[in-house]
Amino acid sequence: MNTRPVKIIAIGDELLEGRTVDSNSQRIQRALGGHGVQVALIQVVPDTPSAVSAALDRTEPGDIVFVSGGLGSTPDDMTREAVAKWAGVALAEDTAVRQRLEDRWRRRGRKVGVGIGKQCQVPAGMAAVTNPVGSAPGLVGVLRERRVIMLPGVPAELAGLLPLAIDWLAGDGALPAAQPHLVRRTAQIAELALEKRCRPVQAEFPDLRWSWWLSDWGVDLRVAGADERELAAAGRRLDALLGALVYGRGPLTLPEVVQERMLKAGTTLSVAESCTAGLLGGALTAAAGSSGFFRGGLLVYADQVKEELLGVPREILQEFGAVSEETVRAMAEGCRQRVGTDYALAVSGISGPGGGTVDKPVGTTWIAVATPAQVHAGCYRFPADRYRNRLLTVASALDVMRRVLEFGDEQPPWASGDTWCRP
Amino acid sequence: MNTRPVKIIAIGDELLEGRTVDSNSQRIQRALGGHGVQVALIQVVPDTPSAVSAALDRTEPGDIVFVSGGLGSTPDDMTREAVAKWAGVALAEDTAVRQRLEDRWRRRGRKVGVGIGKQCQVPAGMAAVTNPVGSAPGLVGVLRERRVIMLPGVPAELAGLLPLAIDWLAGDGALPAAQPHLVRRTAQIAELALEKRCRPVQAEFPDLRWSWWLSDWGVDLRVAGADERELAAAGRRLDALLGALVYGRGPLTLPEVVQERMLKAGTTLSVAESCTAGLLGGALTAAAGSSGFFRGGLLVYADQVKEELLGVPREILQEFGAVSEETVRAMAEGCRQRVGTDYALAVSGISGPGGGTVDKPVGTTWIAVATPAQVHAGCYRFPADRYRNRLLTVASALDVMRRVLEFGDEQPPWASGDTWCRP
Repeated sequence: MNTRPVKIIAIGDELLEGRTVDSNSQRIQRALGGHGVQVALIQVVPDTPSAVSAALDRTEPGDIVFVSGGLGSTPDDMTREAVAKWAGVALAEDTAVRQRLEDRWRRRGRKVGVGIGKQCQVPAGMAAVTNPVGSAPGLVGVLRERRVIMLPGVPAELAGLLPLAIDWLAGDGALPAAQPHLVRRTAQIAELALEKRCRPVQAEFPDLRWSWWLSDWGVDLRVAGADERELAAAGRRLDALLGALVYGRGPLTLPEVVQERMLKAGTTLSVAESCTAGLLGGALTAAAGSSGFFRGGLLVYADQVKEELLGVPREILQEFGAVSEETVRAMAEGCRQRVGTDYALAVSGISGPGGGTVDKPVGTTWIAVATPAQVHAGCYRFPADRYRNRLLTVASALDVMRRVLEFGDEQPPWASGDTWCRP
Repeated sequence: MNTRPVKIIAIGDELLEGRTVDSNSQRIQRALGGHGVQVALIQVVPDTPSAVSAALDRTEPGDIVFVSGGLGSTPDDMTREAVAKWAGVALAEDTAVRQRLEDRWRRRGRKVGVGIGKQCQVPAGMAAVTNPVGSAPGLVGVLRERRVIMLPGVPAELAGLLPLAIDWLAGDGALPAAQPHLVRRTAQIAELALEKRCRPVQAEFPDLRWSWWLSDWGVDLRVAGADERELAAAGRRLDALLGALVYGRGPLTLPEVVQERMLKAGTTLSVAESCTAGLLGGALTAAAGSSGFFRGGLLVYADQVKEELLGVPREILQEFGAVSEETVRAMAEGCRQRVGTDYALAVSGISGPGGGTVDKPVGTTWIAVATPAQVHAGCYRFPADRYRNRLLTVASALDVMRRVLEFGDEQPPWASGDTWCRP
């Protein structure tokens, strides 16, 4: 399948000094996975012309070479110059690029800086690809018999340009056609538990290629194969097997799925957050258009604030504690009434590292959803550190909301097989 | 300072399929950082003998070569064999290793499996280093004039063995002494603007090595050099030049700096968030101990909620709009009073992509801080997309709080040179 070897060169001292992990290569890998292509080599090199040139020398004619990083406007951004020098071609200003960059700055009501001059330079034989989310354009072209794709190192900008670069490769016949595949996005289940669940289906369809991708919301399962009918059959088996664990089959993230359902139903949401202290609201408003359903919420980190802003009875806090079914139920109902929304999500947990006890160890978290009809509450035991426990809390709360919107609120929104929930 | 180039070879298909990001290399980088050593090259390759051999061929005599992954006991663990074959040396069982592994299994009350045989194999010329957290030993030695360190890919096992491998290199005189360096962490200034400001100091100290790293909070400046006195002099010049832009000189992040100052002063903080919808509260509570100063806040995404939960007068919202000095001042003061804290931060902005107008383009954001004495408000024009505009809002609000805590609230917490602020 992997006709032309794909090699990635990730450029930047920050990737070699222990400051930043190279996550861009994973984005490129996943984009290529859709075409059944696996990356053959990643090189991470410092931002010096000699290092970049040496990395390019380690590629071969016929290779597809992704180069990420060093397209900014500071002096240590030297990828354009280094690649042009290696290829023995000249750099020239692309007037169309300058026009776009100057317009972009003016639209933002800002004076055009000298820095953009650098970003208008294009090596002979390459074409500029307009950056949909930033200033530095991507650059694509054939140099020394390699198909070279240069992308900015800023993850959001690389992610925005990547599909356009892939299109260029595919249009050029350098990539195999995108392979038929299906996606099942899951939440509230751990990677190993999900793999175990899927094993019988894997055994049943040995010709399909299975990939497991971790996201902020859970585990994405990707199955690819040449035979569309076989793929569809596997999809049906998976859906029967995974049931409520699947929140999406397309590109939408979990917060986007909640947003889509909320907007479609014309309902509104608010949040009451203790341990996550705003991360849930932040996730729900990541996509444009969230103001159509998200109204606001209350961050009740301190118990006194739970009492004063949400009306959680002091007796409940004293008798059951802040991390309890009674408290989280009162938080959800109080939030729903005070913000005046159809639904309200409430979370209260012990993220760690401190605060754990014998009956409430670190990771113990209560999540409640208040609906027009009732309040559902569930207890979780997240297994990770403070950072990931908070992420898992956000993802689980979002998925609780998604399930209520998808299945209604007659039944509690938890299913057997939810890894961390102990209803 | 980097006398012997250090090169990392990370082995594993999972690192090339978009499933896992290579985080082990960062662990190795950080362990070497203390010795002032920067990794010269990372290669990520699939777990095939030919790929491993090709990666080793891309190293040179004199190099220090870390090889991670493929030391387990399953058939696809072939690193030992591939390295031995590349070096042209034999593999032989190390009886001491077998003894340790068999003891380890027995201590766990488990039958000694056949897989263990593989993990007892040591290439001639290498020595086994006992794994403090797992079974597979590390392997160190000189092969074809390279100092080769082989470590397991399981992150916890690699982390456990790493210090022992570093000790071996240091004892062997292969690592230079740690190089002095200084760090200045800045917020509210763009990378290009910061670099421009530092140019005179760079010219003054041409022997120093300068790097700029983007963080979630701003730009970190790192300056390294052999001469301590020269470094200290450059540090003084930088501090004079950058002034209030510097929020830290050590490992603490911006939220951690705010937390440290809040805890030291025994003061409390609350937040009123519109466009960020909780990201500010989430950032303030990322570190353990935040409950010592952070009390809570209000997410007032909808105007009606700004009115009802924060008491922002309807007339203000109607006359000046939600993104205005008047509104954000009322939000900050209302939040401070309702949550009952010493300080309150309020943010309201147009993150994009929609919602921009001629006088209030996308990126227009108001940030206010309410103190016991008064309320300061400043207007920003962030230049990025929705995602990054929200991050910049959080970082700028945190830095506004940091400046008030550091310099007092008599003067507005903005300085000439703040890139995005238009006071």
